[in-house]
Amino acid sequence: MTTKSTMEKEDDRARHRESRGGAESLRPLLRPRSIAVIGASNRENSLGAAILRNLFELGFHGPIYPVHPKASFVHSTKAYPSLEAIPDEIDLAVIVVPRQFVEGVMQECASKKVKGVVVITAGYKETGTEGAKAEQRILEIARGAGIRLIGPNCMGIISTDPETRMDATFSPTPPPEGTVAIGTQSGALGVVMLEYARELNLGVSDFVSMGNKADVSSNDLLQWWENDPRTNVILLYLESFGNPRKFAALARRINHKKPIIAVKSGRSRKGLQAASSHTGSLAGADKAVEALLVQTGVIRVDTVDELFDTAAFLAHQPVPKGRRVGIVTNAGGPAILATDACEAWGLQMPDLDDSLKARLAEFLPKEASFKNPVDMIASAGAEEFEKATRVMLESDQIDALLVLVVRPIIMNASEIGRAVVRGAAGSNKPVLSCFMGRQGIPEALSSLKEAQIPSYAFPESAIRVLSRVARYGEWKERPHGSIPELPDFDRDKISAVLEHARARLGTEGGWLSPGEVDELLTHCGIATPVSRFARDGVAAREIARTIGFPVVMKVIAEGVEHKTDVGGVHVDIRNEDEVEQAFKTIRQSLIEHDIPPDVMSGVMIQPLIKNGTEAIVGASCDPSYGHLIMFGLGGVHVELLRDVAFRLAPMTDMDAKELVRGIRGYPLLDGFRGADLADVPKLEEIILRVSTLVSTFPEIQEMDLNPVKVLARGKGCVTVDARVRV
Amino acid sequence: MTTKSTMEKEDDRARHRESRGGAESLRPLLRPRSIAVIGASNRENSLGAAILRNLFELGFHGPIYPVHPKASFVHSTKAYPSLEAIPDEIDLAVIVVPRQFVEGVMQECASKKVKGVVVITAGYKETGTEGAKAEQRILEIARGAGIRLIGPNCMGIISTDPETRMDATFSPTPPPEGTVAIGTQSGALGVVMLEYARELNLGVSDFVSMGNKADVSSNDLLQWWENDPRTNVILLYLESFGNPRKFAALARRINHKKPIIAVKSGRSRKGLQAASSHTGSLAGADKAVEALLVQTGVIRVDTVDELFDTAAFLAHQPVPKGRRVGIVTNAGGPAILATDACEAWGLQMPDLDDSLKARLAEFLPKEASFKNPVDMIASAGAEEFEKATRVMLESDQIDALLVLVVRPIIMNASEIGRAVVRGAAGSNKPVLSCFMGRQGIPEALSSLKEAQIPSYAFPESAIRVLSRVARYGEWKERPHGSIPELPDFDRDKISAVLEHARARLGTEGGWLSPGEVDELLTHCGIATPVSRFARDGVAAREIARTIGFPVVMKVIAEGVEHKTDVGGVHVDIRNEDEVEQAFKTIRQSLIEHDIPPDVMSGVMIQPLIKNGTEAIVGASCDPSYGHLIMFGLGGVHVELLRDVAFRLAPMTDMDAKELVRGIRGYPLLDGFRGADLADVPKLEEIILRVSTLVSTFPEIQEMDLNPVKVLARGKGCVTVDARVRV
Repeated sequence: MTTKSTMEKEDDRARHRESRGGAESLRPLLRPRSIAVIGASNRENSLGAAILRNLFELGFHGPIYPVHPKASFVHSTKAYPSLEAIPDEIDLAVIVVPRQFVEGVMQECASKKVKGVVVITAGYKETGTEGAKAEQRILEIARGAGIRLIGPNCMGIISTDPETRMDATFSPTPPPEGTVAIGTQSGALGVVMLEYARELNLGVSDFVSMGNKADVSSNDLLQWWENDPRTNVILLYLESFGNPRKFAALARRINHKKPIIAVKSGRSRKGLQAASSHTGSLAGADKAVEALLVQTGVIRVDTVDELFDTAAFLAHQPVPKGRRVGIVTNAGGPAILATDACEAWGLQMPDLDDSLKARLAEFLPKEASFKNPVDMIASAGAEEFEKATRVMLESDQIDALLVLVVRPIIMNASEIGRAVVRGAAGSNKPVLSCFMGRQGIPEALSSLKEAQIPSYAFPESAIRVLSRVARYGEWKERPHGSIPELPDFDRDKISAVLEHARARLGTEGGWLSPGEVDELLTHCGIATPVSRFARDGVAAREIARTIGFPVVMKVIAEGVEHKTDVGGVHVDIRNEDEVEQAFKTIRQSLIEHDIPPDVMSGVMIQPLIKNGTEAIVGASCDPSYGHLIMFGLGGVHVELLRDVAFRLAPMTDMDAKELVRGIRGYPLLDGFRGADLADVPKLEEIILRVSTLVSTFPEIQEMDLNPVKVLARGKGCVTVDARVRV
Repeated sequence: MTTKSTMEKEDDRARHRESRGGAESLRPLLRPRSIAVIGASNRENSLGAAILRNLFELGFHGPIYPVHPKASFVHSTKAYPSLEAIPDEIDLAVIVVPRQFVEGVMQECASKKVKGVVVITAGYKETGTEGAKAEQRILEIARGAGIRLIGPNCMGIISTDPETRMDATFSPTPPPEGTVAIGTQSGALGVVMLEYARELNLGVSDFVSMGNKADVSSNDLLQWWENDPRTNVILLYLESFGNPRKFAALARRINHKKPIIAVKSGRSRKGLQAASSHTGSLAGADKAVEALLVQTGVIRVDTVDELFDTAAFLAHQPVPKGRRVGIVTNAGGPAILATDACEAWGLQMPDLDDSLKARLAEFLPKEASFKNPVDMIASAGAEEFEKATRVMLESDQIDALLVLVVRPIIMNASEIGRAVVRGAAGSNKPVLSCFMGRQGIPEALSSLKEAQIPSYAFPESAIRVLSRVARYGEWKERPHGSIPELPDFDRDKISAVLEHARARLGTEGGWLSPGEVDELLTHCGIATPVSRFARDGVAAREIARTIGFPVVMKVIAEGVEHKTDVGGVHVDIRNEDEVEQAFKTIRQSLIEHDIPPDVMSGVMIQPLIKNGTEAIVGASCDPSYGHLIMFGLGGVHVELLRDVAFRLAPMTDMDAKELVRGIRGYPLLDGFRGADLADVPKLEEIILRVSTLVSTFPEIQEMDLNPVKVLARGKGCVTVDARVRV
């Protein structure tokens, strides 16, 4: 076994895949011209029988070869005793034999020069070490023979391409044909998703149950779907990222062309390994996931339900150009619910201007409400719905329209459905509808479905979708910035400092000494104040006088990480007597905290930076996601209120801007209640320097600049204290 | 017109109702022995026809008398030209005539001594001033004749009582019989709710569409349902409270017997009237609603969907005794989603102990996961589900069980449904199920429905319901405290101060002077520090020396409310020279903020309370909800981070405890990172004093104690500054 990190191993695998032709190597899996099913069976209720039946039922565009050790035919089709016995070429083999036979079948696939394999059989990595070894063995056979492998432990794949028409799953519900691609890491949810697609009549291009992702991962699929002209929207259900950095690069690129919507579950699962920096302890794995998805424009949703709500919109409606929502309705109650939802989800419901109100008043009764929501009251019929829909969409005062309908008392609801379709025809703004009721109002939905206007059972669902896609639209439009060149960043000298520290600390690594940290930051171009060591009270007096009052005194003691917690920091010391007193108090405080005073080697004296807002900038290395950069304001903001934001390194200048503005406390840097504007540009620069530092030297495991004093605009920032671990 | 406040008017109305026999006066409405329908019609699609049809279809247990000006029969039933012409007594009249005829019909009802009236007809208060006047007129007729009135502008009422069987609505869907009472302020949502009840097979006892609530309100209905033996759960959809204080008293009492679940919409609507205190500006109307519902144990949900999700649970399952959830499943993916939801909703998923694991291992394969969630893997059949359900419910390690099922590949899902029912039989712990799929797994749901085990389409919905009902259970169990007697609260002296201030300020009211505030607080038993006024820098020197350094200096200037914003506060002044300098700086700062220095009458000098945590305690009067008490920590905690909590006055000692612990920053008072424990008991006492003050003297419009310095445990609190407006 080598000692390569997970990250390095993933990189190896990614390189391996690239070298094998990238996305195009998936063609035999997703567009095969011939399929063998090994484990095909006449036994009802067996997986093999279900897969074979599905393949025939969807009408695979090519020959299907059942392989069965004894039967001469399966599903009324000539069966072969082995792969070898098949006289023709096989693009894709679907393996559904018991686990003990899979390895042998894989060998046969290699001999037969099969190009793609789907292993349905379970009992691999998901069951523990033994299974993981077996999985590794079949993966090695595949690699050796240039076979691309989906699974094991998956529920199969589907392509609705008319030139392919393959349903190689055991799911009871084939999806309709369309433009939405689905990749799922859970087979069970895959079944649920196919059922959704059928019920919502949401057309699917390809469906892949990835199973254990031994070979083909979501990254491979993203590349395939990026270039697939049949796919416009990509849905993912993920429990883990194989190679998150690769995912990030792909998602950022692809999201500009086709939206990616993802459920990433496992939020509450594993944290990072025990970490002792602030950044480390705050940076749970889900922070990394969230940062990754935000930075790359992925629309993250919480549930499968929302996944399809959002897909139903993006498959057919344009992305709204802003956050202004108009609502047209025939009932007040649901409109209030929708208004509440708009506020909760950060959308705006602008008041309508007088000319628009006048246009509405031409055909609405005077009891109607001409504010937004436009409440046409219960008497509204098809004509009112059609006209109001059209008039609202024609105005430049909204970016999207929600038509909200309760079952009309007198009229047939289907007429209203058709009226909305007519009113929306030709608009280039998105239109959503909500026909209130647990199933909507079924007779109204058929015409909407046909016209591809998505309909939701609740106004809240519709508004949530609009909010998510509006944010996606903003992400697409905004500049993404670049990773700037930083002056005074001396790569060689930093390297030397780290080299020296590692030599001292050995293979286990550890914290850099205060001196090393100082040097490191200086070579990064990050300013630190004068800071001098004093062994005793007398020396401290002397140093403080030289530096100039007021000063700060901090204990230096082996093993004391959080100096404040043990009374080890005194600020605003104004004269020499106070210096000596502070030294004594610190010593005494250690004793009170059961710390032997001998471990106190002395104190550091620094000038007090009186002004400025305290901030923390940190970095922490996740074994799979790489470095996560944290930003927050000092003290309770970070420690208690957890008011922090994260981005993955390397960051662009835009990322830095967003990071700083991503905390609730940002107004404190922006002139809150008459305060000076803080030097945010300089703060962003420091963040970029930290990002560049850890990206260039990934051996840095964690670091905190804490506190960074952010001075007034133009005055810069001072990093008062810092810690770095390699 | 009198100038009574909304609050006083509501009180009048409440008294009026009480005097008329309370809940029992609703009997002729909800349990009538005879019904007249005025506006009955043969015209298809008319509301009158729909109501008459519904009354006959559900089989009203008593005679129905159609009233029609011309027709001799309606719906094959003899019709009468007027109420008067009916030879028998009428309990309930349902009025569905055009608006211009309603007043005449009401007069007829009065002559006929009808006891209850439902006015379906719309066009009243909801349409503006004219309509409101018409509504007032019909209300006065009702009051004069002792008639209880539901509506106008409503969609009718239902009772499924076998002795009544009345569907006097125009809804297409009558609900099944059961124990859930529904009151709704929106007729449109009423139709949706009845559809839900039918689809989920959730049995309803009574249903009331309240319309404009001219007479009968949700408070009347709560009292009726409190005493109705057929009702176990109460659902409300509310857009406003008529008399929130009455609602609070009722809800608090009734929630101990029967849970009330409510959607209160209109969160984003009206704020309080322009207010200039911190408390006023932070206390939006929804804060008052939230405080009211939390204090009274109402289960607040956001959507109609959740309303029914929660009702489906409470109608048949016991309230869990704690927050520990066990999950049994046949699929990993959905279990991860459920685990994430547990964390998000504050529920616990305890690890199972070894003996429980051993019991599970007796019948589960070794590939299963014996952690919680118990993943029995895809091969799990009916037997495994039955046994695992039973074993989990028998253990003392969980308070509730969620059975989470994806469609089994081989087996019929209905067998699993039946197995869960068998496994759950006889348990006194709540059981929920989730059969994954947009409609659940229909064939499995029938046996669950029969056994009254609620089933949800998504694990997230199930977990959300569990979280809400677990919190309700905690509310029921906890002590509710009492409003304590406060020593040193001198009612008479406070009254005198307020009298004096009002004499000075006139009818418009205004802010109390610093001297009046000081006196007021002293008579409330709230300690304030010595604080002395100085006209100029020389006087300030003198006073500061007398008080003792360090001191605080604050500007006194007409019209300057937020002193800090204009540089009007200097803290930690350490000697006389610094005093004089501070005085000059404040003067200069006013000029820089374009405030003429003449308005500065001088400064107040106080000792600096160096230690202690800054807090804000405030009160603000909402015209309908009464006084809302606010608590938060000082500075950015309140102003920027909005980390505040609210309760309605008068508060119990338990309310005060919860209020203080209800902010994110509470650990700062509780020894966060080695800090001293703050004097929280004393802080709670101050909060109770403010609550008692504003409850006793409702003329206090708003007040802030800001800051209150909370010292170390046992050292008390010091109110450094305060403002009071009458």
